[in-house]
Amino acid sequence: MSLNIGVIGTGAIGQDHTRRINQVLAGARVVAVNDVNRANAEKCVADYAPGATIFDDPNALIADAGIDAVLVCSWGQTHEEYVLATIAAGKPCFCEKPLATTAEGARRIVDAEVAAGKRLVQVGFMRRYDPGYRALKRAVDSQTGAPLMVHAAHRNPRVGNAYVTPMAIHDTLIHEIDVLRWLLDDDYVSAQVLFPRKSPHAHEALRDPQVVILQTAKGVVIDVEIFVNSRYGYDIQCEVVGEEGIARLPEPMGIQTRLNATLGQPILMDWKDRFIDSYDYELTDFIRAASAGTAAGPTAWDGYVAAVTSDACVAAQEAEGTTIAIDLPARPAMYG
Amino acid sequence: MSLNIGVIGTGAIGQDHTRRINQVLAGARVVAVNDVNRANAEKCVADYAPGATIFDDPNALIADAGIDAVLVCSWGQTHEEYVLATIAAGKPCFCEKPLATTAEGARRIVDAEVAAGKRLVQVGFMRRYDPGYRALKRAVDSQTGAPLMVHAAHRNPRVGNAYVTPMAIHDTLIHEIDVLRWLLDDDYVSAQVLFPRKSPHAHEALRDPQVVILQTAKGVVIDVEIFVNSRYGYDIQCEVVGEEGIARLPEPMGIQTRLNATLGQPILMDWKDRFIDSYDYELTDFIRAASAGTAAGPTAWDGYVAAVTSDACVAAQEAEGTTIAIDLPARPAMYG
Amino acid sequence: MSLNIGVIGTGAIGQDHTRRINQVLAGARVVAVNDVNRANAEKCVADYAPGATIFDDPNALIADAGIDAVLVCSWGQTHEEYVLATIAAGKPCFCEKPLATTAEGARRIVDAEVAAGKRLVQVGFMRRYDPGYRALKRAVDSQTGAPLMVHAAHRNPRVGNAYVTPMAIHDTLIHEIDVLRWLLDDDYVSAQVLFPRKSPHAHEALRDPQVVILQTAKGVVIDVEIFVNSRYGYDIQCEVVGEEGIARLPEPMGIQTRLNATLGQPILMDWKDRFIDSYDYELTDFIRAASAGTAAGPTAWDGYVAAVTSDACVAAQEAEGTTIAIDLPARPAMYG
Amino acid sequence: MSLNIGVIGTGAIGQDHTRRINQVLAGARVVAVNDVNRANAEKCVADYAPGATIFDDPNALIADAGIDAVLVCSWGQTHEEYVLATIAAGKPCFCEKPLATTAEGARRIVDAEVAAGKRLVQVGFMRRYDPGYRALKRAVDSQTGAPLMVHAAHRNPRVGNAYVTPMAIHDTLIHEIDVLRWLLDDDYVSAQVLFPRKSPHAHEALRDPQVVILQTAKGVVIDVEIFVNSRYGYDIQCEVVGEEGIARLPEPMGIQTRLNATLGQPILMDWKDRFIDSYDYELTDFIRAASAGTAAGPTAWDGYVAAVTSDACVAAQEAEGTTIAIDLPARPAMYG
Repeated sequence: MSLNIGVIGTGAIGQDHTRRINQVLAGARVVAVNDVNRANAEKCVADYAPGATIFDDPNALIADAGIDAVLVCSWGQTHEEYVLATIAAGKPCFCEKPLATTAEGARRIVDAEVAAGKRLVQVGFMRRYDPGYRALKRAVDSQTGAPLMVHAAHRNPRVGNAYVTPMAIHDTLIHEIDVLRWLLDDDYVSAQVLFPRKSPHAHEALRDPQVVILQTAKGVVIDVEIFVNSRYGYDIQCEVVGEEGIARLPEPMGIQTRLNATLGQPILMDWKDRFIDSYDYELTDFIRAASAGTAAGPTAWDGYVAAVTSDACVAAQEAEGTTIAIDLPARPAMYG
Repeated sequence: MSLNIGVIGTGAIGQDHTRRINQVLAGARVVAVNDVNRANAEKCVADYAPGATIFDDPNALIADAGIDAVLVCSWGQTHEEYVLATIAAGKPCFCEKPLATTAEGARRIVDAEVAAGKRLVQVGFMRRYDPGYRALKRAVDSQTGAPLMVHAAHRNPRVGNAYVTPMAIHDTLIHEIDVLRWLLDDDYVSAQVLFPRKSPHAHEALRDPQVVILQTAKGVVIDVEIFVNSRYGYDIQCEVVGEEGIARLPEPMGIQTRLNATLGQPILMDWKDRFIDSYDYELTDFIRAASAGTAAGPTAWDGYVAAVTSDACVAAQEAEGTTIAIDLPARPAMYG
Repeated sequence: MSLNIGVIGTGAIGQDHTRRINQVLAGARVVAVNDVNRANAEKCVADYAPGATIFDDPNALIADAGIDAVLVCSWGQTHEEYVLATIAAGKPCFCEKPLATTAEGARRIVDAEVAAGKRLVQVGFMRRYDPGYRALKRAVDSQTGAPLMVHAAHRNPRVGNAYVTPMAIHDTLIHEIDVLRWLLDDDYVSAQVLFPRKSPHAHEALRDPQVVILQTAKGVVIDVEIFVNSRYGYDIQCEVVGEEGIARLPEPMGIQTRLNATLGQPILMDWKDRFIDSYDYELTDFIRAASAGTAAGPTAWDGYVAAVTSDACVAAQEAEGTTIAIDLPARPAMYG
Repeated sequence: MSLNIGVIGTGAIGQDHTRRINQVLAGARVVAVNDVNRANAEKCVADYAPGATIFDDPNALIADAGIDAVLVCSWGQTHEEYVLATIAAGKPCFCEKPLATTAEGARRIVDAEVAAGKRLVQVGFMRRYDPGYRALKRAVDSQTGAPLMVHAAHRNPRVGNAYVTPMAIHDTLIHEIDVLRWLLDDDYVSAQVLFPRKSPHAHEALRDPQVVILQTAKGVVIDVEIFVNSRYGYDIQCEVVGEEGIARLPEPMGIQTRLNATLGQPILMDWKDRFIDSYDYELTDFIRAASAGTAAGPTAWDGYVAAVTSDACVAAQEAEGTTIAIDLPARPAMYG
C-alpha cells in the first residue's frame, strides 16, 4: 500500500527528497533513481535508498510499471520533457521549480494535463506549505479585511558571480510571485521595476537591490524589495495591509538573548534553513494525492502563470521605471 | 533674562504652545497674543498666560519692542505675511506648517531671510525632534551603512469629509517629506503615486490608500504608504535599508499584556499623542536659539523644499503612475 | 525492515500515536493494539490501523513474536506492570508519563532495566524534543555562560473540578521538573512552595497559583510559577540567567496583527497545540532506537528522578514555606 | 511668581537637579546652594546657577527668608538633620534617597511632618514618575485584575569593590521596595533571601546574584532577582500577574536593527540613562506642589516604610533562606 516513487535528478534537492521520503515520511518509498551522472545516482541509492533501481534512461524510469509516481529534480532545461512524459504515462508528477524554462513550455504542460483530464502535476513552490505563510493566509482571510497593499522583501546575505540581474526574477522573486498570488487569491496585471543606487557589495553584472511593484486584478499594489547582497541575513518579510488591519509573516523561531548590551535574536544566514519544514509538508501532500492517482498543491497553471509573470518582470527590469502589462489567457476550468 | 514671546494665532496649537512655554519649559514667557477672534485670545490669556497683552493687530505685536520672538500659529494662508514681517523686524520666528501655502511664497521667505543675512526662521517640523527618529538617524549614520531604500507608512484610523485626495500630500505626507530628507541628508529628484483599490471606508472625494514613491539625488528609492482610513490606529512606520543592514523606527512605548488569548500592546488612535514630546523639544530648541537672536532646527529652505516636493506629489497624484521630476534651484549658502 | 509496534491503551494519546506512526512517520507500523475497552481498540484499528490485530490480553501482545516494540499509553496505574513485562520480553518500550505512580515503582523499572543490561525504556517527556527548548539548550550551553537562575511559568487558562492541589505537581510541574533537569544538566536538592492569594477563579479544593522554588546541586535557584486558572491562555515561559547573559524560550509562532488599536499576537488556549511537533520527534527517536533494539531519549532513571522530585514538591506544598530536601541515590552507570 | 529653591549638596545629583530647574523646567529657580566643599558649590553656581548665593551653613540656607523650598542632595548621613530643619522652617523639602540612614531617623521625620500638620516632604523615588511604570500601573489597575504575583529583576553590568552584600538591598532593591508598594498599593509582611551559586564576576565581599521573595498584606508573592554583575546590561524588569492576565514593564526605547545575522535592540549599560525623564517629572511635581506650600509624590512615610523593609531584607540576607516578618506601625492619617 506504499507509493513507489522514481526520482529523476539526484543532485542536492533530489537526494534530499529521497532521504525525506525514505527516512522521514510515511506512505511512500523511492524505488528508482536516474541521473545524468550515474555516480550521483549510485551515491543517492547507497546513502538513502538501499535496494532502489538505477535507470540510465529517465524515460524508461517514467514508463516502468513498478513506478507509481515521479519526482523531477533534474536540471531546469529538462523539466518540460520529463513532466510531459510522466503526464503521458498517466502518473502523478512532482516537479521542482521551474516547471519549464519558458512560458510556452509551461503552457504545453498545462495543455497536456488538461488533455489528460485530471491533475497530475504538482510544482515545488514550497512556501505555500510554510506554517508561517499558512497562518498569514488564515489571518488575511479572516481578520484583516480585503487586502489593499502588500509590502514584501526577499533578502540574501550574498550571491556568487554567476547570479546576474534577471536571476533576481527567475531565481528569487519567483517565490514571491507564486506565494503572493496564492496568499491574495488574485492575479497580476502589471509589473514595474525600480533600481535604487547599487550596493557596493554587488558585483559588476548585477543591479542590486531592486524594487518590484506588482499590481493585481483586484487592485492590490505590491512592493517587493529584492536585495541579494544584504550582508546581514536571509530574510523574508511579508506584510498584508487590509481594509481593517494588517497581518505580518512571523520571524523564524529563534532564542531571544540578552548579551553584550544587546537584546538579540538570530537571523538565518542560509536560505536552506528557512523553509525546511515546508519540504516535508509539500511531499506529504504529494504522497497523499499521488496515492489516489492525482496531484494537489501548486498546479501546472500556477507554474505557467509564474513563468508569464517572470517574463514580464524581466521586461520591466530592461525598461526600468516603465509599467509592463501582464496578460494571461483564460484559466482552464480544471484549475478553477 | 527670559525670552519674551508673542503668539499669533491662539487656536489649538497656539494655545498648546503657550501652555508649554509658560508652564513646562524654562527660559521664555508668552507675554503677548493675537487672534482673528479676540475671544480666543482672551481665553488663551486666561488659561495659560495671565498678564499677557492682547494685540488686535498682529503686525503691531511683531513690531512691539517688548517682544523678542514670534510664534506664527495662525491660519496657513497668513503665514507668509507674518513670517516676512517678523524677518523684517529682525526677530526670530517659529512658524507652524506650512511655511507658506505656495512654493513661491516659501521662496519669498527664503529670499528675505538670506537678505537678512542670518537665520531667523524655524519651521514646525516637529518629527525631527522625536526621540525615535533621532535614534534612528544615529543608527543610520553609524551602523547600517549608506541608505539604499526606505519603506515607510503613515496611517490614521479615519478622516473627516473635508479631507480630500491632495490633503494626503499637503497635510499627511508633508511630515515624511521633511523628516526623510533630514534622515537621509538628501534631496528628492522624482515622485510617483500609485492608487491601490480604494478602501470602502474612504469617502467619495478621497482616494485612499495611496503609495508614493520618491527617488533621491543619492539614488535612494523610498516607498511611503499613506492610508488615512486604516481603522486600526495612528501608526507611523519607517525602515531604512542600508548597505550593511536595516534600522527601524521604534513603536511608541506601550504596556505588553497577556489577556484574552492575546499577547498585545496598545496602538495609538490619536495623532496628538504620537509626537507629544517633540513639541517640547522643538520649542526648547527655538527658545535656546532665539535667546541668542537667531534660529535653529528646520529652516525656511526646508519649508520651501517641502512645498516644491508637495507640489510634485500632487502632480503625480493627478498623473497616476507617471514619474514627475522634482527640480530644485541651488541651495543658498546660508543653509549649507 | 519496518518496526512492528504494539500499542497498549487506545485512549486519546494512544490513538494519536497510532495515527502518527501509521500516517505521518517513516519506519514503523502499529500492527497490534489492546485496550481495557475493546470498542476503543476496534475504533482505533478502524480509524488508524487497518489490519492490526486486537489483543484482549496486554501481556499476550507484549509477548507476541510479531511485535518488535511496545507503546504503553494505558491508565497510569498500569504503566509499571506493562513496562516491566516489556523489559522482561527484551523489547523496547515507550511509556507515557508517569513511568509509575510511585517512586518505588519507578525504581523497580530502573532496577529491571539495569538488570537487563541495556536501555529499553523511553519515557514520554516530549518537551525535550520541542524545537524551542532544544534551541534554548544550545544557547544556554554555548552563549550565556553557566546558569545561575531560572525563571519559569506554566499557565493554563482553566482546569476542571477534578484537578486538586497536588495535581499542580504531578500533572503540571512534572514537565518543568524533567525539562529543566535536562536543560541545566543538573539535579535538584530542595523544593519550597509558596502560595500567593488564591485566584477567585480557582475552585474550592485547589490552591492556585503556586510558586515553586527548586535549588540544584550546582547552585541554580529556580522559580516556577504554576497558575492553572490564568484565564488568558496556555503559556509556557522559561528564562535562564547565566554568568554572561540571558536566554529565553521563544513564544509559539503566531501572526502579528495590527487591529482595533492593538498590536497583537495570538496566545494558545489549548495545551495540545503547544508541543504538537514534539510528539512526532519523540516517536521518530523511539522508532530509530527501537529499530536497533534499544531506547533513546528520556530514561527510566529520568522517570524515577521526576517521581522522587514530585513527591518532595507535594511535601513542600503540605509544609507551605518550608524547604524540603531532595535526596537521590547514586545514579546507575547505565544512565551516565 | 517663580519658586526660589535652595540646594544643599552640589555633587553629581545636586548639580543635575540645579541644571534641570534652571535650564529645563518652568516655574522655579535655584537661587542658593551649599556644599561641604565650597569649590563644588562655586562650580555649580558657575555652570548652572549664575547669580545664586553660596551659603557656607546649610541651616542658614534653610532659614533664609528668600528661600521658598529646599532640595537635600547631600551625603545620606546628613539627610535627617536637614529635612527636620526644613520641616521646622515650614518649607517644602525634596530629599534624595535615603530619607534617613535608619528606620528610626525616618520615623522622626514622619513624626515631625505629622506634627507640622501638612505634607512638606517628597522623597526622591523617581521610578514612580517613569512613564513605563505609570503605564504599567494603569494596566494593572484597569486591565489585568487584582495582582497575585510579581516577577521582577534589577540587573547592573558590574559594580565596584566598595559594593558589598547589604548594598544590594540599600542601594539597589530599595527602588523595587518603593515602586512595587506603589504599583500594588500594598505593604510587605515578610522577606526571604536565597543565594544562587555566586557569579565568578562578583568580588570577594559580595554574594551576587540574589533572589529576594517579598510577600504582601494582600497576599501577593513577589520575586526579585538582584544581579549586579550581569555583564550584559542595566536591565529593569517587572511583570505583574493578575487574576485576569499579565502586564509587563516596557523595554526602554531603542532602534531595532538587522545586522550581522542578528535582529537586535540596544540594552542600556549605564543606569543614569534608564530613568532620565523621571527626574524631570519628579521635580516638576515638586515645583508644582511646593509653589502651593506643600509636597506631593513619595512621602516621608514611604521613606520610612522603605527603611523598615530594607532592614528586614538585610536580616533575611543574614539568615539565608529564612522568612523574616516585616511589622509596620499604623499609618498616620496624613498619609491615608
